[in-house]
Amino acid sequence: MSGEKTVGVKPVFKKVLTDVDRGIYVESWEVSNEDFGLDGRWCIKKCRLRGGTSEGVDIITVDNGALSFTVIPTRGMGIWKGEFKGLPLGWESPVKSPVHPHYINLEARGGLGWLDGFNEWVVRCGLGSLGAPGIDTIIDNMGRRREVMLTLHGRIANIPASEVKCRVYLEPSVKLSVEGVVYERSMFGPNLKMTTEISTTPNSNTLKITDRIENLKSTPDEMQILYHCNYGVPLLEDGARLVAPFHKVAPRDERAAEGIESFDEFGPPESGFVEQVYFCKLVGDGRGYTKAALLNRDRTRAASISFSLSELPYFTVWKNTNSLEEGYVMGLEPGTSFPNHKSFERRMGRVVNLKPGETYEVTLELSAHVGAEEVRRLEDEIEGLMEGVETEIFRNPVEGFSPT
Amino acid sequence: MSGEKTVGVKPVFKKVLTDVDRGIYVESWEVSNEDFGLDGRWCIKKCRLRGGTSEGVDIITVDNGALSFTVIPTRGMGIWKGEFKGLPLGWESPVKSPVHPHYINLEARGGLGWLDGFNEWVVRCGLGSLGAPGIDTIIDNMGRRREVMLTLHGRIANIPASEVKCRVYLEPSVKLSVEGVVYERSMFGPNLKMTTEISTTPNSNTLKITDRIENLKSTPDEMQILYHCNYGVPLLEDGARLVAPFHKVAPRDERAAEGIESFDEFGPPESGFVEQVYFCKLVGDGRGYTKAALLNRDRTRAASISFSLSELPYFTVWKNTNSLEEGYVMGLEPGTSFPNHKSFERRMGRVVNLKPGETYEVTLELSAHVGAEEVRRLEDEIEGLMEGVETEIFRNPVEGFSPT
Amino acid sequence: MSGEKTVGVKPVFKKVLTDVDRGIYVESWEVSNEDFGLDGRWCIKKCRLRGGTSEGVDIITVDNGALSFTVIPTRGMGIWKGEFKGLPLGWESPVKSPVHPHYINLEARGGLGWLDGFNEWVVRCGLGSLGAPGIDTIIDNMGRRREVMLTLHGRIANIPASEVKCRVYLEPSVKLSVEGVVYERSMFGPNLKMTTEISTTPNSNTLKITDRIENLKSTPDEMQILYHCNYGVPLLEDGARLVAPFHKVAPRDERAAEGIESFDEFGPPESGFVEQVYFCKLVGDGRGYTKAALLNRDRTRAASISFSLSELPYFTVWKNTNSLEEGYVMGLEPGTSFPNHKSFERRMGRVVNLKPGETYEVTLELSAHVGAEEVRRLEDEIEGLMEGVETEIFRNPVEGFSPT
Repeated sequence: MSGEKTVGVKPVFKKVLTDVDRGIYVESWEVSNEDFGLDGRWCIKKCRLRGGTSEGVDIITVDNGALSFTVIPTRGMGIWKGEFKGLPLGWESPVKSPVHPHYINLEARGGLGWLDGFNEWVVRCGLGSLGAPGIDTIIDNMGRRREVMLTLHGRIANIPASEVKCRVYLEPSVKLSVEGVVYERSMFGPNLKMTTEISTTPNSNTLKITDRIENLKSTPDEMQILYHCNYGVPLLEDGARLVAPFHKVAPRDERAAEGIESFDEFGPPESGFVEQVYFCKLVGDGRGYTKAALLNRDRTRAASISFSLSELPYFTVWKNTNSLEEGYVMGLEPGTSFPNHKSFERRMGRVVNLKPGETYEVTLELSAHVGAEEVRRLEDEIEGLMEGVETEIFRNPVEGFSPT
Repeated sequence: MSGEKTVGVKPVFKKVLTDVDRGIYVESWEVSNEDFGLDGRWCIKKCRLRGGTSEGVDIITVDNGALSFTVIPTRGMGIWKGEFKGLPLGWESPVKSPVHPHYINLEARGGLGWLDGFNEWVVRCGLGSLGAPGIDTIIDNMGRRREVMLTLHGRIANIPASEVKCRVYLEPSVKLSVEGVVYERSMFGPNLKMTTEISTTPNSNTLKITDRIENLKSTPDEMQILYHCNYGVPLLEDGARLVAPFHKVAPRDERAAEGIESFDEFGPPESGFVEQVYFCKLVGDGRGYTKAALLNRDRTRAASISFSLSELPYFTVWKNTNSLEEGYVMGLEPGTSFPNHKSFERRMGRVVNLKPGETYEVTLELSAHVGAEEVRRLEDEIEGLMEGVETEIFRNPVEGFSPT
Repeated sequence: MSGEKTVGVKPVFKKVLTDVDRGIYVESWEVSNEDFGLDGRWCIKKCRLRGGTSEGVDIITVDNGALSFTVIPTRGMGIWKGEFKGLPLGWESPVKSPVHPHYINLEARGGLGWLDGFNEWVVRCGLGSLGAPGIDTIIDNMGRRREVMLTLHGRIANIPASEVKCRVYLEPSVKLSVEGVVYERSMFGPNLKMTTEISTTPNSNTLKITDRIENLKSTPDEMQILYHCNYGVPLLEDGARLVAPFHKVAPRDERAAEGIESFDEFGPPESGFVEQVYFCKLVGDGRGYTKAALLNRDRTRAASISFSLSELPYFTVWKNTNSLEEGYVMGLEPGTSFPNHKSFERRMGRVVNLKPGETYEVTLELSAHVGAEEVRRLEDEIEGLMEGVETEIFRNPVEGFSPT
């Protein structure tokens, strides 16, 4: 460990790992409880990957003693993989290791180039746009309408952070935090600054993402964000179930309509399975907070996400129970919109407009649950949110949810 | 300092910083007057930026004691920023630090990807093409006509130099020089070699760019170059004025026509301001040299550029007095053509044709002027060029200048 | 030298240079006969290029004492250049040094971006597609047909190897080998794993490429591969001749038809020469092996390639005797198909379908021949293959060979 330790007066330890403006870049670094003479078994470790398409990718692994996870500053501060007491969190994509944005051409394959690097547990879609690729109309530098290709899920996951720092809060209790600043900006284009803090506490089963997205322009601008939280084996398995306080559920298209009866149940890996996507509205508690979870077959292990419906009002379920080779995976996707093409979401009034200098804040918690008791408590909590509410399930695509 | 010093016989000190063929690459280096036991306060400093989208960008800062400027070998030997006796030269783009070409996809956003890295004081547009993006027809490897996208302002600003060296001339007087070779080449494509020298002398207010662009093909080929010289605050301000020996001035489009009465005057930052572009023909002196300048409101500070009308016959003025956040900026743009789409400029006979082995040479001087006296002298000089010539100002776009 | 030497028990020395999964990357390394106390003059040398568009390109040069060649792990394990007893193997492209894939945008210039990095002696085209650029229809993640651009010659040459190792076999006799694993994969896309071994023996005139391409998907998938083996001066010269056991020869297009009479003869560099391409079926020996060679004018030097017609049944000849500046070059191109657009080759039944887990294996030998005697023997051998077979030469493009 090396860094500016300021124990005592200010009980927080801070280490800057990257700061473009100040010319700071630290290739390898780590800190652990031992550096503070504290009990426990937690650490933060930073290194740089080498070779292949991972060459030059920075990763930061936080291990709180029970839960560990790996943040990728080089890929927009996404979270690659996690593990809680031996339970892997994330999935096995055909793309095995983190891909440096240098190797991603978002425009490739008709705007699907994003998929060449898609393997994260948690990846943000956005910020200028997200969702299906396709043509949108922008105003160019000449003030003229210009048709441009919006590529799948936008740019943020393929932009490296300009600032990266770690903080260890020592009082009132220990908190481990990785912070990053990612700019999605261009001359005559969007200028969005995302400041993220990803934190956890020793031995907890939870990590918390706090993102603040600021419009740095002098004019209003659009913003979209969706958290693509993906789970594969072992949580996802034949008999696994999705639990959430569903208010409305609609299939995205005919293909999803085929499986509407069992939209919340998962089958085994099935070669050739074509993805099914469901657009949902969830119910929240008194303050608008809600929770969704994936439970394994025998309800002994689960993963959940918690968020505010006022921040992330639209919830998408991605069922992609294709073969293991193809990436057997399901996704919990809370967002500011559904992942349809931006032009459709705009028409539906589901694209955020940020005033000059305005900041959109999102908090998302991801937890892992081990043990029947613990999973049962989680189920109860989610069911409690549904009290008095009936789920409306549409058998066919619904006007306004998906383009027709 | 380390390098091959050859004082005495050959009074020039040379340091090779990059040479792909010889496998030379120097990450950090500097030299100053002290290394030669000379008086003064000049130096040349080379370093590599780290982190974010600046990761791996090489920059070379030359400080002559009064004027300093930063060359970016990684971005085609453009000049990022400058400063003269405390006066900043350049502008504040929404894109804050130099962006590595790895992060630029010129094809993105309908061919506007160039804008994702646009923040230089002086950036070359070219060499195979420049100007607005759009479709052009090339002859492909099969000898067939093929429609291809020409992207905004071409490729040269996003190609790293293959050779970079610094030279310190000690006799007859000290000259500091940064030299680079940038190739814009492809199999079955253009093969243009640009050799540039960017130099200055101790305590001078001027830097000189000398570019030689050679067609390495065995057949004639087209070439375009335009020097996009950009100024923001503090020189650009409400009341700042552009001074140049205008012979003809025409608005590019309706939007520019709106402001034709005050095309040479600048207002304050104005959110939502849509750029206005003016196409001009300037008057030169007996040898064809001319000069254009931006003066601040109270005429105490100015920046000027000098060039030859035989080398750069077309002069474009870019007014983009948008908000500070959006990049409050104006551009002086001498070029071999106007920055319309290449197909239009070709039709107008304004695209250079280089014979096999032929070299096109351009010299451009950029100066800074501080003090009312000094600025007055500059104005007088430019007005002197206009003697006997009347400016013709077109109120509407002119056929042949802009596409109609 | 440093590595795991295991002389004695297992008479093979292995050095891992890159392994993404294990976090291994070796920047510089070499091994030679001296490290084993052996006679000879062979070595393997690994280094990383610096500067320009070659920045970060890894190259491995194998010198067997007579034949040397340079493998580029960063560019899909292609072979840049070779030399046999002073005879250069390869060609002089306008693109002078190996270009890092970071600088290649395959989508650029209407899908011709591949040409920006094309300068290898041996470059693989493939694996998901190869040949002329153009639109193809894929099934996207939603199970819908989507039109995408297939770019010239596919992706494999611009993907860095994820694993690179060198092996020196000491028994029964010395063999020098460079091995690499390159993945061409994407979520919802192809997932092809190419494992290559490129090997030679001390003082031999031959290098051997053994490629195994495995479909890692759970469903059948298409695969294409073509070995673009290119020769320029001094082998290629006015009077040089191509010798191969031609069964059928057809011009690709009208332009090639113009030169059908002398399709196997080469003229001097000719500025403005438009490429001529011939599609051929060759004859093999009893086991299906065949050989093609380029002979210099006075038949004292030659280069040959040997391969199996069951692995690479289609043979393309590329005549590009343009000026030296433009890349005076001819290509021997054995492939799983002709290099027409994939959609045409598919229609003709010439695209390989790999079952899940199936591997396609290709072995290709490249040899150099010096001395009239040696060249004569080579000619005799190739003529021997033709025994009893007559060559059918089509004067015009043939339906089924080229699109009409």
